[in-house]
Amino acid sequence: MTRLSSRHLLGLEGVPRADIVAMLDAAESFREVLDREIKKLPTLRGITVLNLFYEASTRTRISFELAEKRLSADSINFTKVTSSVTKGESLRDTVQNIEAMKIDMVVVRHASSGVPYYLTNCMDANIINAGDGTHEHPTQALLDMFTIRRKYGKLDGLRVVLVGDVMHSRVIRSNIWGLKTLGASVALCGPSTLIPYGVEQFGCDVYTNVDEALDGADVVNVMRIQLERQKAGLFPSQREYTNLFGINKERLKRLNRNYTIMHPGPMNRGVEIATDVADGGQSVILEQVTNGVAVRMAVLYLLSGRKEEE
Amino acid sequence: MTRLSSRHLLGLEGVPRADIVAMLDAAESFREVLDREIKKLPTLRGITVLNLFYEASTRTRISFELAEKRLSADSINFTKVTSSVTKGESLRDTVQNIEAMKIDMVVVRHASSGVPYYLTNCMDANIINAGDGTHEHPTQALLDMFTIRRKYGKLDGLRVVLVGDVMHSRVIRSNIWGLKTLGASVALCGPSTLIPYGVEQFGCDVYTNVDEALDGADVVNVMRIQLERQKAGLFPSQREYTNLFGINKERLKRLNRNYTIMHPGPMNRGVEIATDVADGGQSVILEQVTNGVAVRMAVLYLLSGRKEEE
Amino acid sequence: MTRLSSRHLLGLEGVPRADIVAMLDAAESFREVLDREIKKLPTLRGITVLNLFYEASTRTRISFELAEKRLSADSINFTKVTSSVTKGESLRDTVQNIEAMKIDMVVVRHASSGVPYYLTNCMDANIINAGDGTHEHPTQALLDMFTIRRKYGKLDGLRVVLVGDVMHSRVIRSNIWGLKTLGASVALCGPSTLIPYGVEQFGCDVYTNVDEALDGADVVNVMRIQLERQKAGLFPSQREYTNLFGINKERLKRLNRNYTIMHPGPMNRGVEIATDVADGGQSVILEQVTNGVAVRMAVLYLLSGRKEEE
Repeated sequence: MTRLSSRHLLGLEGVPRADIVAMLDAAESFREVLDREIKKLPTLRGITVLNLFYEASTRTRISFELAEKRLSADSINFTKVTSSVTKGESLRDTVQNIEAMKIDMVVVRHASSGVPYYLTNCMDANIINAGDGTHEHPTQALLDMFTIRRKYGKLDGLRVVLVGDVMHSRVIRSNIWGLKTLGASVALCGPSTLIPYGVEQFGCDVYTNVDEALDGADVVNVMRIQLERQKAGLFPSQREYTNLFGINKERLKRLNRNYTIMHPGPMNRGVEIATDVADGGQSVILEQVTNGVAVRMAVLYLLSGRKEEE
Repeated sequence: MTRLSSRHLLGLEGVPRADIVAMLDAAESFREVLDREIKKLPTLRGITVLNLFYEASTRTRISFELAEKRLSADSINFTKVTSSVTKGESLRDTVQNIEAMKIDMVVVRHASSGVPYYLTNCMDANIINAGDGTHEHPTQALLDMFTIRRKYGKLDGLRVVLVGDVMHSRVIRSNIWGLKTLGASVALCGPSTLIPYGVEQFGCDVYTNVDEALDGADVVNVMRIQLERQKAGLFPSQREYTNLFGINKERLKRLNRNYTIMHPGPMNRGVEIATDVADGGQSVILEQVTNGVAVRMAVLYLLSGRKEEE
Repeated sequence: MTRLSSRHLLGLEGVPRADIVAMLDAAESFREVLDREIKKLPTLRGITVLNLFYEASTRTRISFELAEKRLSADSINFTKVTSSVTKGESLRDTVQNIEAMKIDMVVVRHASSGVPYYLTNCMDANIINAGDGTHEHPTQALLDMFTIRRKYGKLDGLRVVLVGDVMHSRVIRSNIWGLKTLGASVALCGPSTLIPYGVEQFGCDVYTNVDEALDGADVVNVMRIQLERQKAGLFPSQREYTNLFGINKERLKRLNRNYTIMHPGPMNRGVEIATDVADGGQSVILEQVTNGVAVRMAVLYLLSGRKEEE
């Protein structure tokens, strides 16, 4: 069994190539399990996983819970709404209490960047970042990379365009680190007000014109536009965003022949992505979702240190 | 093992007699399991069931979750409050995402009629309607019929009165279809403003006078009055409803000797049903609840296509 | 296997010494299980436990759910927010319905004192009080006692000071009964407006001066101050409470040498307890949390009447 170099998955920044490949490879074998009639393995029997969701989430929470149950782990769900967080206890005390209950692994989503890292200082459990503020969302990027690798057999040498709010997207951030590590060429595209200063130093090409960005690309990964950011005046209107950056059929002509359309969901159809593109033959958006369960099974399994006993 | 003619349970309209009988028969054997000390069977091991509740529910949600756990299925709960439904994603996208996660069965409750049917177009999972708008609530009607059949040994030839908001009650609607199919005689009774035009064509007797409706009946199934409907001006006051349609001890004299009182819950005691009637010796209201778990086990089991391996 | 003298755990008032000792002894063996890599036992396989939480709770709910899962019971969660409690059904009807679903054990938390007792009249399930109004919170007191006994090897003869809102604290109330039964000497300390008239008859020493209370004590169990009570005018300000009753390092000098600091959580750091005290070497606050899971496993196991088959 492969051992990862870290006990936690906080992000993809700095994660060695061998670790990423190990996670993608393990996901490959779990992906096969998902096509069986009985999708359950005894791998994590006796392991307790706490799903600590401080931000609302449908798909990520369900995807992790499914991954846990398919590995026979015990899942405990904690969501902000039903908890006593309002009692004013500090995050540190909440977390230390949870740690004291001898929970093995924690999947955490939080609106503040750095919370998963912070947890590693408070508890012995393996921490998995399920999205923290504008920082990282590593399992999303892993499932994106897994989906690309399944189609092309490799990541090396492919050109991937990430379109959206480059400044605030944790999905973009995790994709940059992972894709660069595996040898893909990464292009970023979004409104100039949403491109952070100095982003070129990550080794990405940066565009504010989407047609130029798409030129000769293999994969377009379209990010959800957070309509709530509009209030901050960072982009003028939804309609203008759609005109300037929305991915529609016309724009796809610029891509390489065997191109791929991706979106992490939930989609604003007709805003950042046209419906016929989202549902077109080159879209792998639903495959991303299926692969997400396999990738999360792989991450849970590898971090647990358990040996698979199938 | 009996195979049902459909992979889904969307309603009882048009469901063949053989299917209904198969579900009631299977429920009979699961009902026995509920009286054992160990109430758990391995039947659905490895099957994942998503409980997709867009409307608040205590008993139906718990009843399904219990049925799933007693069959060793894995349950995932989704309720509107803790999800990202507010992110503005379409129901179709939410559901396709869930489907992509390879969930085997979905139990769905929604305020809009037709949502369960809609889901069958979006996903391969078996869909079970747990109540959709004013359309149907088939497992409730099945458990009502199961409870009647357990007491009388048959449904054929019995006279069943359904009292309440005939226009909006999904429980009444499902009961009509199921009871007619199994040969019971059905009478409907409620305020004339809440009786839809042309309801006689379903082959039911229709009454606006509850005493006449009860005359010679075997079973009275009393529906919960949705007090929120009052605002729409469809009936004048709770007090008037109680006077005209409330089932009290005096009115029971009109029934056949070995009569039965039913209510799907939750009850407004003193409104649509008097407390001494609800708690009287002829009431099977709590048996309905117990039987509900058995009926839901039967539905899950038969739709899954699994063979029982006890 | 030890049999308790009651099928329920509603409080510690009147519970015989032998029962309390049996629960603490069983907790001791479950506590060892928590240090293993595989923390799961098959003891309650097939048993269904309903966690009926009408009040928000993080740690108690998670602690019980963990205890249930580690004993292989099936857990069903019910919280007020996601239920149809708002439909206006009486508690009795809700509970009878749950009972009719053949649930084996119910863990209940409710803002009204007496609800767990009331449930024992409505249902056959074993009832475990997880906190009812200002009445009792017996598993909290048991875990407090377990933690003390682990450290000193006994409770008999120790002096335990309970500091806080003596009038409203269900944790204090349960601790008084349990500690007295096992032979500890109990001192109560809090603002005079929050000390109920006649409390001395419980056989406790009563103080309104915290320094006097701490004199010669072994254990200080510091209660959370319910800041919401301030509105009722029962104590003047948070700052004054901290000055008069807050446990800080200076005050610890009055204690016996091998003293112990406890708090049931969640803590208001800097209010009822100073941070250096909470995190100091004599604090067992996090051990309390770990022990809580073991104690709840013990209570579930003993009430279930199951034999351990390890």
